[in-house]
Amino acid sequence: MSKPIAIQGIRGSFHHEVVRHYFNGSDNVIECMSFDSAVDNLLNGKTDDIVMALENSIAGSILPNYALLDKNNLKIVGEYFLDIQHNLMALNGHSINDIKEVHSHPMALLQCKEFLKNYPHIKLVEAKDTADVARLISEENTHGVAAIASKNAALMFGLNILAESIQTIKHNETRFVIVKRESPFINPQLLNKASLKFILDHKRGSLATLLNVMSDCKLNLTKIQSLPKIDTPWKYAFFVDVTFDTYDDYAKAKSIITLMAEDFKILGEYKNARL
Amino acid sequence: MSKPIAIQGIRGSFHHEVVRHYFNGSDNVIECMSFDSAVDNLLNGKTDDIVMALENSIAGSILPNYALLDKNNLKIVGEYFLDIQHNLMALNGHSINDIKEVHSHPMALLQCKEFLKNYPHIKLVEAKDTADVARLISEENTHGVAAIASKNAALMFGLNILAESIQTIKHNETRFVIVKRESPFINPQLLNKASLKFILDHKRGSLATLLNVMSDCKLNLTKIQSLPKIDTPWKYAFFVDVTFDTYDDYAKAKSIITLMAEDFKILGEYKNARL
Repeated sequence: MSKPIAIQGIRGSFHHEVVRHYFNGSDNVIECMSFDSAVDNLLNGKTDDIVMALENSIAGSILPNYALLDKNNLKIVGEYFLDIQHNLMALNGHSINDIKEVHSHPMALLQCKEFLKNYPHIKLVEAKDTADVARLISEENTHGVAAIASKNAALMFGLNILAESIQTIKHNETRFVIVKRESPFINPQLLNKASLKFILDHKRGSLATLLNVMSDCKLNLTKIQSLPKIDTPWKYAFFVDVTFDTYDDYAKAKSIITLMAEDFKILGEYKNARL
Repeated sequence: MSKPIAIQGIRGSFHHEVVRHYFNGSDNVIECMSFDSAVDNLLNGKTDDIVMALENSIAGSILPNYALLDKNNLKIVGEYFLDIQHNLMALNGHSINDIKEVHSHPMALLQCKEFLKNYPHIKLVEAKDTADVARLISEENTHGVAAIASKNAALMFGLNILAESIQTIKHNETRFVIVKRESPFINPQLLNKASLKFILDHKRGSLATLLNVMSDCKLNLTKIQSLPKIDTPWKYAFFVDVTFDTYDDYAKAKSIITLMAEDFKILGEYKNARL
């Protein structure tokens, strides 16, 4: 029997939803209160897989999670894109006029602020986890309080959805990755995406030269992000995602980049979820 | 008399500290409870300048603030780098063993979690603003509660620092920008940095080609960040910062990029604070 998957948050969270999609309906999860704790579970062998949010179309990269992957030499083995829809929910029998407070994660409150402006009588209260608020309202039978969470959470905790898809930007996509301690062997012909990290000197054109190599080797860039190296002024770390048609092209690029960049590291080779 | 500067947060916050550094000790600020509200004050003319955090060496770019600048066609006219040091503070007479709760902004709690792990008896409580917690402890004479905030806040609200520089990553730099409704006229010879935004098709090598132009025109890249365009699959927006030695080089690059990229936009031309 396979080990449970570690997620940040509880059952009913968006991370849980990704587990169900990616692992064919699996419900076997370890609920972790932080990404650090999910990584601890992976390192001590209580799980063989973490599901981790890595970037969001509104808020951008979650850099602390990049740092967790990098520091612990973990490997990305897959990805999943989830369209995050926020819904306002409360106990059955409530209308929106009965709601005095909305509790949710600061990011969810931020994403729904335009909708909430229409209801100035509702007080916004920050909470740790979107799904956990839904669970508490249900378990403690809390009147007058609404949660902002997924449909899944409403179903799971028996709450009534008062308003659907209340986030300002309707298309609100988050990219999750599936992470292991080591890359398993996979037939290279099945791989068509990789996440790379490298460090370059702050020398004019150093990035352009490297991107030229990638382009010559027929790699497509799907993400690039620079990060100044804090302890080494004038050096920059880059996190780059590339897609490719054939592994040979990618292998050739790898061997050239190894010679050109400092601290070249493969964060993972996997299947592009966009295809 | 010049108008007050709009900041996110209250006096004693890191934004306030930037105002004092950048505007020669000025203390004339409008305290705003959100970045949106600071922008509203700029648009309706209550202020002519905002100070806005734009990226952090740990958490990365604050994309919602990039979106605010972009959407409202605001202009970056200057920048300031502040080394953020978090300090634990409480009423005089308290030792760390008297502290039952620490209240602070989720990001500050996250950055200090290693230190706080040594004191498992202390409960962490999320709050809206680091300095505001310090103010409340002082005004309401709250015993047993500590704030995590700047030295400035401790001085301003008469609190006692129990532990200095408690964040895990000691060098924790945030880049703030000074923002106006329009770019004022400045002698181009005094400018040596620019923030640009452009959109490219997801065509192999399109970014490399554009970076080659920048490199040929002797521009140095100090930041690059891609952002998928949510409503237009296969198009990417890029936010790029460049520095240059002569404005003529930069002007040449601008005229070429205008021809090559879609939706090329100058978010600001200003003086590099690193020099």
